[in-house]
Amino acid sequence: NRSLDSITSRRIIHLPGLIDVHVHMREPGATHKEDFTSGTAAALAGGITMVCCMPNTTPSVVDEETLKVAQNAAKKKALCDYALFVGASADNAKSVGKLAKDAAALKMYLNCTFSTLELSDMSLWKGHFVKWPSSRPICVHAEGHTLGAVLLFVHLYGRHVHFCHVSRRDEILLIREAKEKGLKVTCEVTPHHLFLTAEDVPQEFRSVKPPLQSKEDQDALWDNMKVIDCFATDHAPHLVGEKTSKNSPPGFPGLETMLPLLLNAVNEGRLTLDDIKEKLHDNPKRIFGLPEQWDTTVEVDMDEDWVIAAETQFSKAKWTPFAGMAVRGKVQRVTLRGVDVFVNGSVVVQPGFGKDVRNEREYNKEVPTREKAAKTRIDVP
Amino acid sequence: NRSLDSITSRRIIHLPGLIDVHVHMREPGATHKEDFTSGTAAALAGGITMVCCMPNTTPSVVDEETLKVAQNAAKKKALCDYALFVGASADNAKSVGKLAKDAAALKMYLNCTFSTLELSDMSLWKGHFVKWPSSRPICVHAEGHTLGAVLLFVHLYGRHVHFCHVSRRDEILLIREAKEKGLKVTCEVTPHHLFLTAEDVPQEFRSVKPPLQSKEDQDALWDNMKVIDCFATDHAPHLVGEKTSKNSPPGFPGLETMLPLLLNAVNEGRLTLDDIKEKLHDNPKRIFGLPEQWDTTVEVDMDEDWVIAAETQFSKAKWTPFAGMAVRGKVQRVTLRGVDVFVNGSVVVQPGFGKDVRNEREYNKEVPTREKAAKTRIDVP
Ligand SMILES: [Zn+2]
Ligand SMILES: [Zn+2]
Ligand SMILES: [Zn+2]
Ligand SMILES: [Zn+2]
Ligand SMILES: [Zn+2]
Ligand SMILES: [Zn+2]
Ligand SMILES: [Zn+2]
Ligand SMILES: [Zn+2]
Repeated sequence: NRSLDSITSRRIIHLPGLIDVHVHMREPGATHKEDFTSGTAAALAGGITMVCCMPNTTPSVVDEETLKVAQNAAKKKALCDYALFVGASADNAKSVGKLAKDAAALKMYLNCTFSTLELSDMSLWKGHFVKWPSSRPICVHAEGHTLGAVLLFVHLYGRHVHFCHVSRRDEILLIREAKEKGLKVTCEVTPHHLFLTAEDVPQEFRSVKPPLQSKEDQDALWDNMKVIDCFATDHAPHLVGEKTSKNSPPGFPGLETMLPLLLNAVNEGRLTLDDIKEKLHDNPKRIFGLPEQWDTTVEVDMDEDWVIAAETQFSKAKWTPFAGMAVRGKVQRVTLRGVDVFVNGSVVVQPGFGKDVRNEREYNKEVPTREKAAKTRIDVP
Repeated sequence: NRSLDSITSRRIIHLPGLIDVHVHMREPGATHKEDFTSGTAAALAGGITMVCCMPNTTPSVVDEETLKVAQNAAKKKALCDYALFVGASADNAKSVGKLAKDAAALKMYLNCTFSTLELSDMSLWKGHFVKWPSSRPICVHAEGHTLGAVLLFVHLYGRHVHFCHVSRRDEILLIREAKEKGLKVTCEVTPHHLFLTAEDVPQEFRSVKPPLQSKEDQDALWDNMKVIDCFATDHAPHLVGEKTSKNSPPGFPGLETMLPLLLNAVNEGRLTLDDIKEKLHDNPKRIFGLPEQWDTTVEVDMDEDWVIAAETQFSKAKWTPFAGMAVRGKVQRVTLRGVDVFVNGSVVVQPGFGKDVRNEREYNKEVPTREKAAKTRIDVP
């Protein structure tokens, strides 16, 4: 009898380890906002077992020396697995390619950012398109017409580009058209562009790049779910005091809330578990050439009703644009490389457990035998 | 003896009728700034015998009715020959094509303008690219990354686009690359971007779109002279009182001064008369499918030294960003369809003499016999 069972009968689902290809861990340089420990704790709490970390830190990760700084911090402090981006600058097109094997990918900031990494001048793009090894994608922050211009470069130089945080109707439609015409592109969409429009967030917290868009833009993202290759948080924490200051910095925390929001959408029939597995596991692995995390599962309770709290539990941000949203679906347990790392709402693993997946020799030490791996239960095939 | 002769021996050159494919005649709607008579007088004084007039008037030229309004005004008042652009709007992609045969071309305003014609949303571009007849080009105001995005559309829909007022180094280099890769594109450059940088014009008069750029950008235009298909003034007159007001409107007058500045550049060895003929006659004709103006010549004195006055003589603007520049080379006489129309500094023809070159039946009435036409003297073959 269904109604009698409803209190105790829960749909418990096992997902593979999920991968967020776009996070800002704020380390080095702004560890008061986040660091590799707090950020990866937020990841695990959100069912994310691998993160790709953006290079717009202080210093920016643009060469061997600055990559080493970030690698050292991550190695000591990360709780989940990770790969680190390197950033394209005006003068590193010839040299940055040698870091490709150690990097998640190359990140190019092409508009709407105000960092030393911004490459607005199109004559600086070609060098990176020609020199960056084809074994790793180029990821771009390219809003609006800039996205169109980058698609031209995809055509001219015949190489794969991954578009970060697509948010507008005309952007997703143009990517669809480009894919239909055979251009080698992939893209990601953030949970805040899928679940929020401008009016949903108080003005003083609203700043984010790309901005929260209109309902029409949001609808276009959902209508083109098949065009979206990845979900990615663009987790970009700032403190409440920073957000509410005069020059409110752009960015939202997102790691703890993305998967619950997506599970809720599954419960609402707007999405399938397969979509989640595809866009947070299969496609990130394929696009970025990331290794399988053996014995890694995310156990979720599809029937848990809860309300997103005003404060993040693990991220130093201590606020979220999703505060107060009622969702059904919750992360119950995360097992990473055979070890339970998140249980009963607590992260139960020590800093340094997370591994750099681009350090292949080190990472492969951890690969279990095929027999052991085969025991991992995944409900979404 | 060369020095003895120097007072009287002048190099008198005959150029064909020159075509300016980008002018704003301000009629209908802002005839205090310019009208078809004052604007075409300025054209003839500058050796221009045919102008292509932009559609961002009041009302905008976007359909049969508004085209008729502009045609009627031009027919009564123009002194030189002309063709009229139609403008792309958010909702005329399906209907505007039927005006193609009567229009200079289709103009699309894709960024950096604040008129009802602005089409920032890229999802609005495809309709125009697909529907506009291939017999006429699509001309675009597309600065920076927008120019790159339009080049993608040229690739996706395989149709010719003409880029208005290219002004930046990265723009001209990208057009060069696109041409090398076989994309069907042409472009124009204005005299103000060739001869002025931001510091050359007082702040209160400096507003223009695209803005005056850096010396590096200007040098790149000169270094890529072969990539430039047309010179075009983007003649966009505003009154002194308007320019010096708080919201200084963008735009410079240019018709009276373009050719003298180019002749001066020929005298300085930076350009050839062939460049002028190619970019103000041959290429405009070819790109826009414009008819030959028989018995039409522009007689210039290559050795006349003069200084550009503070006030335009014919344009209602009554100022010029080129004021005070010393140039060598002057328009002496303009003959249009067998009639001397500009002689000794005076326009000597009546309003209504100018013909709509897209009104083929009317225009061809004027074509003289081959024998008569053959008598026209042109020194640049
Ligand atoms: Zn970004
Ligand atoms: Zn980001
Ligand atoms: Zn897997
Ligand atoms: Zn389990
Ligand atoms: Zn323009
Ligand atoms: Zn213009
Ligand atoms: Zn000719
Ligand atoms: Zn003569």
